Amino acid sequence: MTFIKKLSAAWSANNSLLCVGLDPDIAKFPGQLQGKPDAIFAFCKAIIDATADTACAFKPQIAYFAALRAEEQLEAICAYLRVTYPQIPIVLDAKRGDIGATAEQYAREAFERYGADAVTVNPYMGYDSVAPYLEWKDRGVIILCRTSNPGGSDLQFLDAGGKPVYQHVAQLVADKWNTNGQCGLVVGATFPNELAQVRRIVGDMPLLVPGIGAQGGDIEATVNAGKTANGTGMMINSSRAILYAKPDAQAGEDFAKAARRVALETRDAINRFRG
Amino acid sequence: MTFIKKLSAAWSANNSLLCVGLDPDIAKFPGQLQGKPDAIFAFCKAIIDATADTACAFKPQIAYFAALRAEEQLEAICAYLRVTYPQIPIVLDAKRGDIGATAEQYAREAFERYGADAVTVNPYMGYDSVAPYLEWKDRGVIILCRTSNPGGSDLQFLDAGGKPVYQHVAQLVADKWNTNGQCGLVVGATFPNELAQVRRIVGDMPLLVPGIGAQGGDIEATVNAGKTANGTGMMINSSRAILYAKPDAQAGEDFAKAARRVALETRDAINRFRG
Repeated sequence: MTFIKKLSAAWSANNSLLCVGLDPDIAKFPGQLQGKPDAIFAFCKAIIDATADTACAFKPQIAYFAALRAEEQLEAICAYLRVTYPQIPIVLDAKRGDIGATAEQYAREAFERYGADAVTVNPYMGYDSVAPYLEWKDRGVIILCRTSNPGGSDLQFLDAGGKPVYQHVAQLVADKWNTNGQCGLVVGATFPNELAQVRRIVGDMPLLVPGIGAQGGDIEATVNAGKTANGTGMMINSSRAILYAKPDAQAGEDFAKAARRVALETRDAINRFRG
Repeated sequence: MTFIKKLSAAWSANNSLLCVGLDPDIAKFPGQLQGKPDAIFAFCKAIIDATADTACAFKPQIAYFAALRAEEQLEAICAYLRVTYPQIPIVLDAKRGDIGATAEQYAREAFERYGADAVTVNPYMGYDSVAPYLEWKDRGVIILCRTSNPGGSDLQFLDAGGKPVYQHVAQLVADKWNTNGQCGLVVGATFPNELAQVRRIVGDMPLLVPGIGAQGGDIEATVNAGKTANGTGMMINSSRAILYAKPDAQAGEDFAKAARRVALETRDAINRFRG
């Protein structure tokens, strides 16, 4: 099954546009996991088991694993997801960008080694830096367009012929790069007007939308700006707000139950505005 | 010692602007290394030993290691370089680009885990995606500006207010990001006029210049366009042409001797135009 079909099925099955980001930060792990050799796997597995029926996708952020020499735990997490929750797509957040021969290696890393359904990539080096990922016809290729961080405007908002650079990226992907219908775009939740602009340019293309939760984007404005006619079209990502939700001691919660509560709250908050 | 000082010393000591790129492709390894568990380390070590006195830098390309689950061999190569050739800087070619909290993890990956002297990064997400690397004051941060691949023009050549995007990047780095004198830029050899433009914008900032050798850039035009007043300022990269040089059977060469011959030829060809 292609990434896009898997994502559509997950939107329906879990009635959810929520993407759960897996950014494991050992310093924030609960005490019982501290110091264990497979703490990262154990933490992510608990989060996955607690939230799999609330999410349309899981998004492991490879940087957190790479900094800790924990690639094998990332492999184990992806394998666990594929076996236990094969209906939920894995979006590997890697934001790679390099020339063709090197991009082929990164595509193998994402799709073969980790078995991801989709990967995030950076458009700065242009079409031939993206093409090797597109060769994997059943996978998704999610291209950075308008990012939610403060410096996102430095380049993305430069005016090129009356249109900011990020809109050129959206147009290039929609008109030229998405020949096989496997592309998506990253568009931050912190700029709803720009999210709406991108939606107008790209039709029903899936958008990965970070920036709600810890990054402060407004859910109502985000959903209104980014949804498609049928109320889907987005993977709205939340990482830290779910992973490191504060357990409610009175309710006897542990970190995983707290994560589930926040994931459900976030999914439901999103659903209120899907129309 | 800072990256910039180490690089300057290596330019002088080896009388070389040549950067040897380490892109290990197992399919191209000589027969005696095929099938060995540490083939990648053994191959790179032989290349390093054969070329260390011809080079101003080594540039491992992390994608080749990541695709093959060979991060431990990359760690071993970097450790070997630091111990055996501490005077030659390691430029980790990773081209990472992500928001601040994630970029901190990538900076740890490059500088702590691999002990690189410098790392390549992507500017698309703007200043705060680069700032976490700049916190490592003794390390180099080499930012993609104008790349040598065909699709490089898709975004980098968009005209923004009379100036292409890549010149905005050069200007941003020179005027705002390089406050500690630790930045460099990636500018491909395939566009000498644009290399000259960047040199005018950034003064003596070091440039990492891929695109000679297998990618076809012209050495004379590249050196003339990119050198500083004292005939340095560049790391001119060659990877495949050196790594996979054809041994001269009559001269009894193996792959490492062939690599040394091509590295010396390339260094000398560059030096003819340094003035």
